[in-house]
Amino acid sequence: MKKSESERSVKAKKETVLKDLRKFGGNLYDQMEHGKFPWVEMPSRSTENIFYSPDVRQFILGEKSVKRHARNIRHIKPFTQMVWAGFFTSELVRNRKTSTLRDVYYSAQAYEMTFKDQPESNNILTDLETATGFAREDFNVYPEERSALFGDLTIEYTVPGYEGKQLNMTSHPDGVMLGPSVVSSEFAQNKCDKVIAIEKGGLFTRFIEERVHEKFNALLVLTAGQAPRATRHFLNRLNRELELPVYIFTDGDPWGMHIAMVIISGSANAAHLRGLTTPDAKWSGVYATDIVDYKLPTDPLTPVDIKRLHELEKDPRYTGDLWKREIKTFLKIKKKAEQEAFSRYGLTYIVDEYLPAKLDAMAD
Amino acid sequence: MKKSESERSVKAKKETVLKDLRKFGGNLYDQMEHGKFPWVEMPSRSTENIFYSPDVRQFILGEKSVKRHARNIRHIKPFTQMVWAGFFTSELVRNRKTSTLRDVYYSAQAYEMTFKDQPESNNILTDLETATGFAREDFNVYPEERSALFGDLTIEYTVPGYEGKQLNMTSHPDGVMLGPSVVSSEFAQNKCDKVIAIEKGGLFTRFIEERVHEKFNALLVLTAGQAPRATRHFLNRLNRELELPVYIFTDGDPWGMHIAMVIISGSANAAHLRGLTTPDAKWSGVYATDIVDYKLPTDPLTPVDIKRLHELEKDPRYTGDLWKREIKTFLKIKKKAEQEAFSRYGLTYIVDEYLPAKLDAMAD
Repeated sequence: MKKSESERSVKAKKETVLKDLRKFGGNLYDQMEHGKFPWVEMPSRSTENIFYSPDVRQFILGEKSVKRHARNIRHIKPFTQMVWAGFFTSELVRNRKTSTLRDVYYSAQAYEMTFKDQPESNNILTDLETATGFAREDFNVYPEERSALFGDLTIEYTVPGYEGKQLNMTSHPDGVMLGPSVVSSEFAQNKCDKVIAIEKGGLFTRFIEERVHEKFNALLVLTAGQAPRATRHFLNRLNRELELPVYIFTDGDPWGMHIAMVIISGSANAAHLRGLTTPDAKWSGVYATDIVDYKLPTDPLTPVDIKRLHELEKDPRYTGDLWKREIKTFLKIKKKAEQEAFSRYGLTYIVDEYLPAKLDAMAD
Repeated sequence: MKKSESERSVKAKKETVLKDLRKFGGNLYDQMEHGKFPWVEMPSRSTENIFYSPDVRQFILGEKSVKRHARNIRHIKPFTQMVWAGFFTSELVRNRKTSTLRDVYYSAQAYEMTFKDQPESNNILTDLETATGFAREDFNVYPEERSALFGDLTIEYTVPGYEGKQLNMTSHPDGVMLGPSVVSSEFAQNKCDKVIAIEKGGLFTRFIEERVHEKFNALLVLTAGQAPRATRHFLNRLNRELELPVYIFTDGDPWGMHIAMVIISGSANAAHLRGLTTPDAKWSGVYATDIVDYKLPTDPLTPVDIKRLHELEKDPRYTGDLWKREIKTFLKIKKKAEQEAFSRYGLTYIVDEYLPAKLDAMAD
């Protein structure tokens, strides 16, 4: 299920995806040729089979597995849907077209394959991920959301009409949209020595204007709130293929903290996948302790914020001194602060003072 | 208050903005030099002073005006805040830095200018817009949200570090982020003969992949839901400066219809501004009648959808046969459909069949 780290080339990966999908289908043919009802086996994604692994540093699936069997009348529908999903996504990859979960839902009707609703078709796509070990983005099914990046990295496109073309990620001062074409690109040349991921669009633009990419040799990545899966995968590639450390700056509240955590350790929903996490990425602020140290303008924590902090306290991903300390401090000061709060010291304070102090502390 | 259409050049406009802000401040000095308490007069934005103008084809403010007077103790705080806002934004424009409404709120604290909360500072920015007739984007205060564009248009940047540099809007196949740098750019060369604005990211990507920009000579603009103000202003520029017709494609529901309407006729909140609307833009689908004609997969209208349709029935912007007919049809069929619903006929049906049919019908 796990894909080898050496399958680095994007094109090679696409071929592996197609080969695996063909194997998935070929297997069903084999079963039938041997006179058997076809079936598929995959790890169970039920809650009691999801565990946090301190080794892998993400949620993983346990030993339990489920079978979808064409002999079982209750299985026939999801089994057929899954086979169709395998067919449809292999067509996408082969024809080099991208799609969205919503499109997959409606496209099914073109094949007289009906899904009750979109959650049902989403779930079948997740089954296909689980059975093959590939993420749906590998099948060219992308999220609608787009994030952005900016910095001295040159990518080489692999999408139709742009093969071999290169673009430097400083070409557009609003930032370069991080969509399917960026995700599926090869890294042609990189001059950055770190990645700074930023939660908010306003701050991303501020960092570009203040030339953070030059001053700190950084590739800036806008997560635009919770990072879309494709962006998390891209951060993983930057960290793994280019060996860049990743620093994550968010609002100083439980939600910002969790944006960082999902980039670092992923979510329980993706326990069946690898390559979406960046375990060595560092949450770099805004900490609860920063709120105190920098005397930032704050808002009081709401009851929902406090409830969330108590949930995070029990979350197996939130081990380690930093997380424990910051959760405790939030609960003690009962306050939160946004990234923009540093503007109380002038628009460039965050770049001139806070950011270098944080990066220094992180390098220790 | 209305700015002349001849102030087309972006750089010239920035100078006009600075000149007007200087005049705004100079006026206050004059009053004081004449031994008077300074005051500002501006049109009232209270509900009873907002009217829909069929001539201007947007909401406008009526004859009522309000005075902010430094002599009046209740006025001193908002008056001072407004003067500060004029100072702060003139600094932004002069130093060629951009900002957000949130940043303005926090920045105030650097000047010991306190706002109770962000709605209070937002409101003061709107006062400044009303008093000067410029939009906050003209003062370099931009929304956080970004939309995107793609097509054979070449822009020339005016932002620091990029002056004179050009970028063709087909340079990046995920689409080019439409942020402050694009909004403040000059049009260097254009080969498109129409603009197609699209609500959803998935469809925007589909249109790029299917080469809609080439097949239909179109500049594609992703609104990403309700178009941010900066994007609405940009659509206005494309229509006014390049004389491109604008066609808007949204989901087939009251919310999609209203995304189109706000691009066309603006909102009551912006009754004090000009240049954010594109009155000749056309809503081109998905119509309620398309749902019937194309037998699209649908969802039932919810009670909230139906309530919204009844509100739109009474809205002065929704005159004209098309709007009346479509509202009536929605209420009759009690169904809605998403743009992606066309995928039931295959992923490219929307580009191969629906889009050309619509553009033909629009050209009549």
